[in-house]
Amino acid sequence: MLTIARIAEALGAEAEGDLAIEVHGASEPASAGPDDLALAIAPSWGEALRQGRARAAVLWPGADWRALGLQAAVFAPRGRLAMSRLTQLLDVPPFPAGIHPSAVLDPTARLGDGVGIGALTVIGAGAEIGAGTLIGAHVTIADGARIGPGGIIHPGARVGRHVTIGARVILQPNAAIGGDGFSFVTREPAYVERVRETLGQGPVAVPEDPTWHRIHSLGGVEIGDDVEVGACSTIDSGTIRPTRIGDGTKIDNGVIIGHNVEIGRHCLLCGRVGIAGSTRVGDRVVLAGGVGLADNITIGDDAVITAGSGVLSNVPPGRVMMGYPATRMDTQIESYKALRRLPRILRDLAAGVPKPRRGE
Amino acid sequence: MLTIARIAEALGAEAEGDLAIEVHGASEPASAGPDDLALAIAPSWGEALRQGRARAAVLWPGADWRALGLQAAVFAPRGRLAMSRLTQLLDVPPFPAGIHPSAVLDPTARLGDGVGIGALTVIGAGAEIGAGTLIGAHVTIADGARIGPGGIIHPGARVGRHVTIGARVILQPNAAIGGDGFSFVTREPAYVERVRETLGQGPVAVPEDPTWHRIHSLGGVEIGDDVEVGACSTIDSGTIRPTRIGDGTKIDNGVIIGHNVEIGRHCLLCGRVGIAGSTRVGDRVVLAGGVGLADNITIGDDAVITAGSGVLSNVPPGRVMMGYPATRMDTQIESYKALRRLPRILRDLAAGVPKPRRGE
Amino acid sequence: MLTIARIAEALGAEAEGDLAIEVHGASEPASAGPDDLALAIAPSWGEALRQGRARAAVLWPGADWRALGLQAAVFAPRGRLAMSRLTQLLDVPPFPAGIHPSAVLDPTARLGDGVGIGALTVIGAGAEIGAGTLIGAHVTIADGARIGPGGIIHPGARVGRHVTIGARVILQPNAAIGGDGFSFVTREPAYVERVRETLGQGPVAVPEDPTWHRIHSLGGVEIGDDVEVGACSTIDSGTIRPTRIGDGTKIDNGVIIGHNVEIGRHCLLCGRVGIAGSTRVGDRVVLAGGVGLADNITIGDDAVITAGSGVLSNVPPGRVMMGYPATRMDTQIESYKALRRLPRILRDLAAGVPKPRRGE
Repeated sequence: MLTIARIAEALGAEAEGDLAIEVHGASEPASAGPDDLALAIAPSWGEALRQGRARAAVLWPGADWRALGLQAAVFAPRGRLAMSRLTQLLDVPPFPAGIHPSAVLDPTARLGDGVGIGALTVIGAGAEIGAGTLIGAHVTIADGARIGPGGIIHPGARVGRHVTIGARVILQPNAAIGGDGFSFVTREPAYVERVRETLGQGPVAVPEDPTWHRIHSLGGVEIGDDVEVGACSTIDSGTIRPTRIGDGTKIDNGVIIGHNVEIGRHCLLCGRVGIAGSTRVGDRVVLAGGVGLADNITIGDDAVITAGSGVLSNVPPGRVMMGYPATRMDTQIESYKALRRLPRILRDLAAGVPKPRRGE
Repeated sequence: MLTIARIAEALGAEAEGDLAIEVHGASEPASAGPDDLALAIAPSWGEALRQGRARAAVLWPGADWRALGLQAAVFAPRGRLAMSRLTQLLDVPPFPAGIHPSAVLDPTARLGDGVGIGALTVIGAGAEIGAGTLIGAHVTIADGARIGPGGIIHPGARVGRHVTIGARVILQPNAAIGGDGFSFVTREPAYVERVRETLGQGPVAVPEDPTWHRIHSLGGVEIGDDVEVGACSTIDSGTIRPTRIGDGTKIDNGVIIGHNVEIGRHCLLCGRVGIAGSTRVGDRVVLAGGVGLADNITIGDDAVITAGSGVLSNVPPGRVMMGYPATRMDTQIESYKALRRLPRILRDLAAGVPKPRRGE
Repeated sequence: MLTIARIAEALGAEAEGDLAIEVHGASEPASAGPDDLALAIAPSWGEALRQGRARAAVLWPGADWRALGLQAAVFAPRGRLAMSRLTQLLDVPPFPAGIHPSAVLDPTARLGDGVGIGALTVIGAGAEIGAGTLIGAHVTIADGARIGPGGIIHPGARVGRHVTIGARVILQPNAAIGGDGFSFVTREPAYVERVRETLGQGPVAVPEDPTWHRIHSLGGVEIGDDVEVGACSTIDSGTIRPTRIGDGTKIDNGVIIGHNVEIGRHCLLCGRVGIAGSTRVGDRVVLAGGVGLADNITIGDDAVITAGSGVLSNVPPGRVMMGYPATRMDTQIESYKALRRLPRILRDLAAGVPKPRRGE
């Protein structure tokens, strides 16, 4: 149980009313009970507050908490930031410290103080786990992999050879770091290699030997500090240098990041993003859900790529891109609008509807 | 071995010929041997039947089984429904009941009668597994998670904290339920927050502190009865209320469902669908392969979204949507057709081809 | 340490200079130390070579190695092929041979000579593992599954019932082979079944019983020789015949392959590809990142589908397809260009800008 005073202090926020009221958790306004702190960070939640039974709430600045039937209020000028602090305050570690007896630790692995190793987790030879990192059940840490302090590794995550992970990194369930890159070559040039030039108009050239020879991945992965990698997301090993993820970058579920990719700091990669081999992404870039980036391109700092877009060429810093092939968002929206009007215009043209002409 | 009579009874179907013939399995018509039941549920399979050696087959209504060289036939007015019943009849449980000695069960976990726990599976403290649920190897069930009766949990599936799963639910291999939501906030508004308004035409605003603060996921996941979740699919925990999947909804492989999402009953979510945070999907909605839904939108009951579409705004009940940004299917097809004609029309315009004009 | 002479021999390549120089690994030119072999397979890497400290390099044909400051050079007419051979030479097996004592092997499993079984891996009853196949930690091999010789199975990979895998196959971490197909049917025809005909213009028909009945997957999966399957990729079991992947086909991360799909030999399926049920893909087909193929279609040999495309109908051999719905690449690019010009043309039309007319 936390008092409203304690919560306001943790949020760095102002509070009014009976600050001694205790709550055990947070809730949406309509379903809140008397011991819940209702989260109503915008006026649109006001009506829902009246439906619930909360005595205290986190409110938008200027809200009249008495009129809303409350006994106490915490004011959050930036509501989602308050949610961040509040949910952090209410959360508990997902796994305990200490080593479960069923874990399989190589005797040469080095574990920092306060590390947690879950049931049936495997830590390879020479691997290093930083102080306070909590690892769940069924995690595989390969020989020689290094993980910094303060991290959380969820069940089923795989950390391969040649992988180095910084401090306070979170790997969600079944994330796979350090698999082999998708990199193959035929002995003679394959048909697909010429397609970009011919636009598919050239003849099909079937090589005598269509075997795809594997380029092995020796470069590993380097992940900075404060990175998060989502469930079932994958980051492949580089060929002869590491695939790199910069500090503070957050990666959602179902994202795949190819070999040799370099991603900067403080990026957001939303669900189902795919980045092909050797592409470079700057700092503070946002890739919305389902975005695909072609191989060997560069995305500038602060670029934003809207959901579902496919980027085939370099993007300058700060540019907002949309669609497939991705172009400037404003241009793309114009095109979409024009396309929407097109069937009618073509019908009009065919029907001979006169257009006003200069001078008429 | 099953007799044709027994199969017809199980299918609730009519049968003719020698109903005492026994078969040991089902097969496609061309590759069927004399002890296979050939599945030929449409006239297009007739020729293939003659190539195989089946003595008995499931046939379309009205088929002349003698002319097809068969000794017995089962008639299926709705062929795929017959396949459902027949394959169910021929299948066997993937895992045995009983607890494998290598499993790691917390002593406070509660298991119903007839539960199966596979090799090296981990069941956490206070977790509950309903009667008859069969769990394969290498599954992780977190502390306090609850799974109803009659389910099947395949190897590598992860069930996190605060997850409640109903009766007869199937989780395919490496599905991850209850990972943390992808929810972050910067201290000051980030550039990406203004992009929707400015369409990317405003100046780039780099915040002094680009750190993404994490909003923790405390709400868990609630999955109803008769739900199926595909291999490597993920369903994230809600923030302060559960992410919800309604009864009878089926989810394919590689699907990602964000925090706070609510999905209704009897929906189909095909492969690689992605649903962003807090979006609500009604009952009987079909999302075809690769569909993406933006965050905080509502999809009405019985809506159908065709493959690969990206939905950016609310969809009314029963509406069929296509493309990116998704619009009504009929409108979208008109646009595609017009776009296909456009290059020629522009060439004609440039060449000054006269259009018929009113009155000419 | 390897001599330049040894490397040149392994690459089948010509070498010049001091062939006795020894290197311990490969590196990019700029970051290479004196004991690294720099890889500079195109003239664009020349400047970077001067920044590094390599004494020896793999160079493009005709490069003046002395002028580049090197003491030895290996010449690679097809640079990526040289990288394949070189990285193979420098790599080591990811897992040792021998059986880890924590592995759970059914006594009826049959293992070939030199097999490696990692910590906490489970091998089911009657399963077969071919000679020399190396299996990492936390892998599940179901009862009766068969894996050929010389393969590598990474941690967390799942091999289900009725799965047969050929020789030298690589499964990356958390790949899932043999999950159940996504195949369901309602008792009466569902609304979605009529949408293709009505384009969504017909009335919504809500069935009395919206229950999705499951068609079980009895057919398993057959994977040929020399196939690779990426991290978190899934291949579902067929219904009554196997889902099939041909020899030499390479599958990237996050790919999902539906039930009954048949894929030919020597194909490349890049990241996040999705193939719906019963579709057939020929030999040497390339599906670029994010491509979706509808169910029950056929893709001819040597077809190339560009990134992000959605294919809704059959594709003839050798055809290059782009966009959604996918059409010929050259046609599609014409449409995109026309669409880009369209807003301006519509503005001109509205403003009455005169067009040149025949005879003027």
